[in-house]
Amino acid sequence: MMQTSQRDLWARAWAPNGQRSARRCRSTTKATTVVSAAASARDMSSALSLANIRSSLIRQEDTIIFSFIERAQFARNLPVYTPDAIPVPGFDRCGRRYSLLEYVLRETEQLHGGVRRYTSPDEHAFFPDDLPPLVLPPITYPYVLHHCAESININERILQIYMDDILPGLTAPGDDFNYGSSATLDVTCLQALSKRIHYGKFVAEAKFLAKPEEYSALIRSGDAAGIMELLTDREVERRVVERVRRKAATFGQDITENGAVSAGTGANGGTPEGMNGDRLSTAIGKWEAP
Amino acid sequence: MMQTSQRDLWARAWAPNGQRSARRCRSTTKATTVVSAAASARDMSSALSLANIRSSLIRQEDTIIFSFIERAQFARNLPVYTPDAIPVPGFDRCGRRYSLLEYVLRETEQLHGGVRRYTSPDEHAFFPDDLPPLVLPPITYPYVLHHCAESININERILQIYMDDILPGLTAPGDDFNYGSSATLDVTCLQALSKRIHYGKFVAEAKFLAKPEEYSALIRSGDAAGIMELLTDREVERRVVERVRRKAATFGQDITENGAVSAGTGANGGTPEGMNGDRLSTAIGKWEAP
Repeated sequence: MMQTSQRDLWARAWAPNGQRSARRCRSTTKATTVVSAAASARDMSSALSLANIRSSLIRQEDTIIFSFIERAQFARNLPVYTPDAIPVPGFDRCGRRYSLLEYVLRETEQLHGGVRRYTSPDEHAFFPDDLPPLVLPPITYPYVLHHCAESININERILQIYMDDILPGLTAPGDDFNYGSSATLDVTCLQALSKRIHYGKFVAEAKFLAKPEEYSALIRSGDAAGIMELLTDREVERRVVERVRRKAATFGQDITENGAVSAGTGANGGTPEGMNGDRLSTAIGKWEAP
Repeated sequence: MMQTSQRDLWARAWAPNGQRSARRCRSTTKATTVVSAAASARDMSSALSLANIRSSLIRQEDTIIFSFIERAQFARNLPVYTPDAIPVPGFDRCGRRYSLLEYVLRETEQLHGGVRRYTSPDEHAFFPDDLPPLVLPPITYPYVLHHCAESININERILQIYMDDILPGLTAPGDDFNYGSSATLDVTCLQALSKRIHYGKFVAEAKFLAKPEEYSALIRSGDAAGIMELLTDREVERRVVERVRRKAATFGQDITENGAVSAGTGANGGTPEGMNGDRLSTAIGKWEAP
């Protein structure tokens, strides 16, 4: 399991016995110094290897596809996303009642935040200003990213893209009243998307470290387009799109005891009506954008 | 989506706008009477159709396999299951500190219970005595099961089988410190297993209704073995085992952009090291037992 363990360095986030510096800690300098030399050396050796990062990204694709397939069992269910449609006991600071999704997402973060999910450098909360105190002693992580990276959190945009662009392609229109199931599965989809997209920070850092002088020159000249061009590997992008398409088609199949498989038509209950490989990969293609 | 909607009658549990009688309600008789004639007729027509039940069971297999594959990313991580190994802020009524899994499972049920998960006839809590008050107005469900069925909850046994028999086959031995991730994924596995296993209540009721006189005679004579024999369909059982084996092998594959697929060896990050179709189907075979 050591391969997995190294590959999922960032997922170790939640590890209670690690010796890495806590993120979002008031005295970050002090926290960094408590990293034990052994743990630090071991983690830093693989942290920014592009091979390790890529294998984690590839594994995360499966998580996203599984969670999308699960959500696609149920209809669009618009009331889940409509504030005040369902009388949840929670309001934002402007007095607007949360939607059911916002309520379930925020409450899930209250639970996961307490057990240290969001002290991990690769986890980002959708309600970062509302995180609860830890109920377990904090753990420490080594810094491998530029200090600016910590403040990057595009979950607000991810939530919007998920609701506006992904869900309509993923789910059948209409309402089947499975609101609780839908909201819970949405949380899983959003957490998986958020992790995958924010992993771009590690990709960018690793690429910077491989060509520090080229990137530094572009940064100094404020050449954003040039930076994007240097970051972009079109061959890798092509392979990602193709791989995700194949995964979606494979995992979205109806599989019977006779081995006869069909692209999920719902006939055997394998995947819901109208949900097939093309539809799934189109929906999944949306998250390549941000 | 109406097919899905009918198929997942029980998953509608969480539906906020349903008109079905609430379970665990003090005045169940009254609750039953508020079922609208239309909703009742529509639901009852398909509730105990064996075809509908089977298609839901088949879909639930996918959910279990996806959740098992997700958990198998991480090592066994015994401290997650060991009370007092991790200082969670929760104790049972005997003063024993919860394990991290028990804590996360119980807190998840506090959240899901509030939004009505456990008022659904097909959902069963692992901490049924600790459920919170609803934070949403209750909904009503028609009774389709014998009144004794409501008291059947074998989650304690499911939890034990999961920890003792399933996890050792599913995960690599040892510790990778991904405790939070492991516990959260365990909750998903356990919820999926519990739903699938307790669905047996609907299967049994449908079979009873198909042959009421034969079952009644066996019940009156206290012939438990005879009842089991009449309930058991060996051909269906064989098909389930074969279908699950095929699903596990398919969903557990490493899929690359070249279409070359391999039984998950971890080489491409698709599934973790040592996790392959055989291992997965063996682990999944465990839940056919209860």
